[in-house]
Amino acid sequence: MAAKDYLAEERRNPAFDLHAMTNLIYGGPEKAEKWKELSRLVAADPVFRKDDKYHLSRPEAFKRALEKVKQAYKRVHELGLDAADSRLFRVLVDELQGSDLHHGMFIPTIEGQGTEEQKAKWLPLANSYAILGCYAQTEMGHGSNVQGLETTADYDITTQEFVINSPTLTSTKWWPGGLGKFSTHAVVFARLRTKGADHGVHPFIVQLRSLDDHRSLPGITVGDIGTKFGLGAYFTVDNGLLRLDHVRVPRDQLLMRYAKVSPDGTYSKPPHAKLAYGAMVYVRAGIVEGAGHYLAKAVTIATRYNAVRRQFGGKVGLETQIIEYKTQQHRLFPLLASAYAFTFTGKWMRKLYTEVIDQLNRGDVSGLPEVHASTAGLKALTTSFTADGIEECRKLCGGNGYLMASGLPDLYCAYVPACTYEGDNYILFLQVARYLMKVASQLANGEKPSGAAQYLGDAQRLCSVQCPAKSAADFLRPEVQLEALSARAARLVIGNGMRIQGAKNFEKAIADSAVEMVRMSRAHCQQIVVSKFIEQVQGDIEGRGVRDQLVLLCNLYAVSQIEANLGDLLEVGYLKPKQASWVHEALAELLIQVRPQAVNLVDAFSFSNHYLGSALGRYDGDVYTDLYARAWKEPLNSTDVVDGYTEHLRPLIKQQVWPVHSRL
Amino acid sequence: MAAKDYLAEERRNPAFDLHAMTNLIYGGPEKAEKWKELSRLVAADPVFRKDDKYHLSRPEAFKRALEKVKQAYKRVHELGLDAADSRLFRVLVDELQGSDLHHGMFIPTIEGQGTEEQKAKWLPLANSYAILGCYAQTEMGHGSNVQGLETTADYDITTQEFVINSPTLTSTKWWPGGLGKFSTHAVVFARLRTKGADHGVHPFIVQLRSLDDHRSLPGITVGDIGTKFGLGAYFTVDNGLLRLDHVRVPRDQLLMRYAKVSPDGTYSKPPHAKLAYGAMVYVRAGIVEGAGHYLAKAVTIATRYNAVRRQFGGKVGLETQIIEYKTQQHRLFPLLASAYAFTFTGKWMRKLYTEVIDQLNRGDVSGLPEVHASTAGLKALTTSFTADGIEECRKLCGGNGYLMASGLPDLYCAYVPACTYEGDNYILFLQVARYLMKVASQLANGEKPSGAAQYLGDAQRLCSVQCPAKSAADFLRPEVQLEALSARAARLVIGNGMRIQGAKNFEKAIADSAVEMVRMSRAHCQQIVVSKFIEQVQGDIEGRGVRDQLVLLCNLYAVSQIEANLGDLLEVGYLKPKQASWVHEALAELLIQVRPQAVNLVDAFSFSNHYLGSALGRYDGDVYTDLYARAWKEPLNSTDVVDGYTEHLRPLIKQQVWPVHSRL
Repeated sequence: MAAKDYLAEERRNPAFDLHAMTNLIYGGPEKAEKWKELSRLVAADPVFRKDDKYHLSRPEAFKRALEKVKQAYKRVHELGLDAADSRLFRVLVDELQGSDLHHGMFIPTIEGQGTEEQKAKWLPLANSYAILGCYAQTEMGHGSNVQGLETTADYDITTQEFVINSPTLTSTKWWPGGLGKFSTHAVVFARLRTKGADHGVHPFIVQLRSLDDHRSLPGITVGDIGTKFGLGAYFTVDNGLLRLDHVRVPRDQLLMRYAKVSPDGTYSKPPHAKLAYGAMVYVRAGIVEGAGHYLAKAVTIATRYNAVRRQFGGKVGLETQIIEYKTQQHRLFPLLASAYAFTFTGKWMRKLYTEVIDQLNRGDVSGLPEVHASTAGLKALTTSFTADGIEECRKLCGGNGYLMASGLPDLYCAYVPACTYEGDNYILFLQVARYLMKVASQLANGEKPSGAAQYLGDAQRLCSVQCPAKSAADFLRPEVQLEALSARAARLVIGNGMRIQGAKNFEKAIADSAVEMVRMSRAHCQQIVVSKFIEQVQGDIEGRGVRDQLVLLCNLYAVSQIEANLGDLLEVGYLKPKQASWVHEALAELLIQVRPQAVNLVDAFSFSNHYLGSALGRYDGDVYTDLYARAWKEPLNSTDVVDGYTEHLRPLIKQQVWPVHSRL
Repeated sequence: MAAKDYLAEERRNPAFDLHAMTNLIYGGPEKAEKWKELSRLVAADPVFRKDDKYHLSRPEAFKRALEKVKQAYKRVHELGLDAADSRLFRVLVDELQGSDLHHGMFIPTIEGQGTEEQKAKWLPLANSYAILGCYAQTEMGHGSNVQGLETTADYDITTQEFVINSPTLTSTKWWPGGLGKFSTHAVVFARLRTKGADHGVHPFIVQLRSLDDHRSLPGITVGDIGTKFGLGAYFTVDNGLLRLDHVRVPRDQLLMRYAKVSPDGTYSKPPHAKLAYGAMVYVRAGIVEGAGHYLAKAVTIATRYNAVRRQFGGKVGLETQIIEYKTQQHRLFPLLASAYAFTFTGKWMRKLYTEVIDQLNRGDVSGLPEVHASTAGLKALTTSFTADGIEECRKLCGGNGYLMASGLPDLYCAYVPACTYEGDNYILFLQVARYLMKVASQLANGEKPSGAAQYLGDAQRLCSVQCPAKSAADFLRPEVQLEALSARAARLVIGNGMRIQGAKNFEKAIADSAVEMVRMSRAHCQQIVVSKFIEQVQGDIEGRGVRDQLVLLCNLYAVSQIEANLGDLLEVGYLKPKQASWVHEALAELLIQVRPQAVNLVDAFSFSNHYLGSALGRYDGDVYTDLYARAWKEPLNSTDVVDGYTEHLRPLIKQQVWPVHSRL
């Protein structure tokens, strides 16, 4: 007998072809099928079960995670998955672990910065897990400022070795994932010194632990830095500390694709290579697509629960679904639209990556500053928004969102570091600002910006035009939306440009008006997301009703962003107060239109119950049965009378601690 | 030898008398001294140490918390503390526990709703811990909607007992703190039914567990609902589930101060009593003051760490303190000002409480609707802002804010439920909205609102006047600030009032424009906080320089709120775009002024290192030594080679799982 679908009513009459939407999201029917197939395989494997996830002490949880690493390695090989599908498989296992850094940082660093010889030696070892590695860059006193790292690597010409050392407490490597307990090796970043000269920070392969018994090697002090935010999330990652006491590594463990040290200690470095740009765009595209994906997970849970949960407005069982409440819709549906928007922005960035590679191959580096700036900004914009959005989804689930069983606290804690790693978001926005300030000065010289900043070529018009909207309905026109966001960004760029231009010290001027700079950069990036979403919605889209839904979501994303930034739009003089009220009206109308398809629109992401890991987000909506069953698995419930009663509670109740009252 | 003070430079030349400020915060020199004395006592007691806090499994953590409950009870009696100081003592122990609900909900409910006889019987038992109680109201399917509760209490006239029953899964009591494992008794809310009539939800005292062995009694199914957000925080609270299978309690365990059931089953109820209003104002005053207090904890940690942490802008050791960065200041200092603002708002509410009690004693209930609305709104405003503010402080500490050792993840997870309990914040804002809509219609009839809503009596002028500011400096004038926030609120109230007035169905009209309603209510409450802060800053204030600092903080709070709501102020037509730019300027100038006193201003809250529980927030700023030492206490570091290596990692490294590569 099929279980009851508590969301059946929501799923009646989908206005669009869900399969076609899923195909679009995952990049084609084959990829979508692979996603579903691997989802099923992972969910069916008892090693990957998640029901014990929040019941383990940290050492127990860490051990369980290692079991999953082993099983994932085994299954990936049994199934003969290629690199991309292996990555999917590990995503679906949904357990953060040291191996993430092995795959995500250690191997790519060797691939990117090793010579052919070094790659031939180290990559087979790493790919077969004969060695396990991590990326040891940040230090206790030095996070964002890589050039400030203190670890030293002195070249000893007599033995042709580097002597790597941690001279101070603040030079202790601090935070690298997988460093504490998991890795046998690390790429360690240290100041290369040879023949009395400091050549700055370079990467060295350093062995940390014995390959025979995993014990840390002489001169190596390595350990975990302690528990982090949340119970699930990074509980299972051994972010580590590392101190090196004059540890010697052979000369050829400096990764020498670019800078080299010859046996006699001579340092050489080719002219600055731009090749790393391609990899950077690729990584950032993944992060932005990931933002859409993780936001979609949170929105799926919140949307389904909001459709199941009833409160007020009727008799028991007939109360109003909380998804009907306007305040809930106003908070939730723009997040749904954002999940789609970021997914499409990520797709555009993947295309941008191939374009950049083409340009580099042709020796054309003219577009790189723009690509660097816009991808940095999009990483910052989407990760910050997604982190906040996941937490908002948790709040939208009321008290039960606070339970680990909702899956949402874990999702937030697992996601929020994305605002810090691969570039702190505020620092990235300031990089965007530097680029935009250069654009402003170039515009004065008649130069036109390229790529996603092209619209700024039209700055003169954008700075003088008024919003043409004459009704709420006008805000549903993409050209009206785009002009609004473009005009806002352009006016902030030109305004700041005029302010900065006169300044004697460019960097100081940027720093002094950093608040304005961030506001401007954010505006620029919001313009990009909306323009790319509009472009793609206007392209070829297959499947019944799919385009209509995407147009609706694109409108919702754009208008919700306009509403959230009405202050700017009014302040720069582009909108009139009356028009602002139409924006509210337009958004209210869009919320009404999205409501009937909300559950279908999250279903299209095709997340399995296993992957969501949420009693509130279950596909069938049977949330209360699930919550109740999960509660009884809590270790505190393993006995009726809790451990500690005899020692602490009983003496209190029996008036033995401070006798005040005669017994009952 | 005294340890080095890494913040000594920040503490040179305080511009104000810190002791006088501390006295003001805690309500006089005696209370401030008591706070400091109890802080020292708690910190010195090894039972209350917190260094094992994040290293325990949930059952271990729960047992440790019980140990602290026992020790707190003992020490409170040994020290002969009165009720208020006992509460302070438990706050300083800083461990959430079932006993919080015993003191915070179980005892007050009996005090408030019990007859004299019932109080004489139950209170001595509860006060001496001979029984331990909780407050079992919410059910799985029913959180905010108390009238929808399903648990039934049928009066059996033959035995003069109530038969209490959980008829459905959704009627399971769900969430009450202390219910799962700690409590022997509960106040259970159930639908009172007698002589075939359902009289709605009433409170009953129900025994859950044996006083001899703590085992759950026949008919009682009780347990913990499972782990919640975070590792510390509510880890140690046994939020519980409860199912009652026709459990019988004597008639006199219905709390009968108001509604009564006579032995023959006759139900009687006095005309609606307003007496509960006083208690409600008192509780909400505590919550608002608590918002200031907990925000101050987070701001203390973030401010000290931001003054210690250096990044970019110079050589190692001479890099720029991150507190100098404008984006950090723009995020952090308004939170510092808010901590002070909420502290003073709470103080004003305490005074309001005594006024309300006076009015009730005089039989004057005319002011109650306004008091009900404004206190509900202030609870919603300050708790939401504080939860977000704590998380912002965590983000302001970069990567290290993500460590449990920073104390900030725990603070957030412990605080954020305040947005849900004692009234969901969105629902509270809608209550404020209903009141404001009545004010709008009364204004049309020439009636003037009272209390904190008095300014709306001037709505006509506020709706037509333009902001008089002619420069950034004008925004530092309290009358300019206050008029801006008043005009914004008044225009939203009048605008919404006109829209709602014509509606056939008041409730439906409120629901349909709930988004606007919440915006309006928030605006009203922000006006109140600023006006009360201004009033108190203008009153008697002792101590060198204290008033100047408070004026500065009051300006900062007001201007930052104006900046955060420029969209509204422009949209309602009160501000002109040029004036908006002056607001940014005014705020930038205030940030510069606050900077030199930032550390002194957080020091004035006088939080001990024990109470803060943060390596980043230590008084002496020696954060790196502390972080390093804490890391080595992590259980994962108890062995060099981690548990699980032999079973899972070794087979991988030794190529036994899927032999691919010959051994190194």
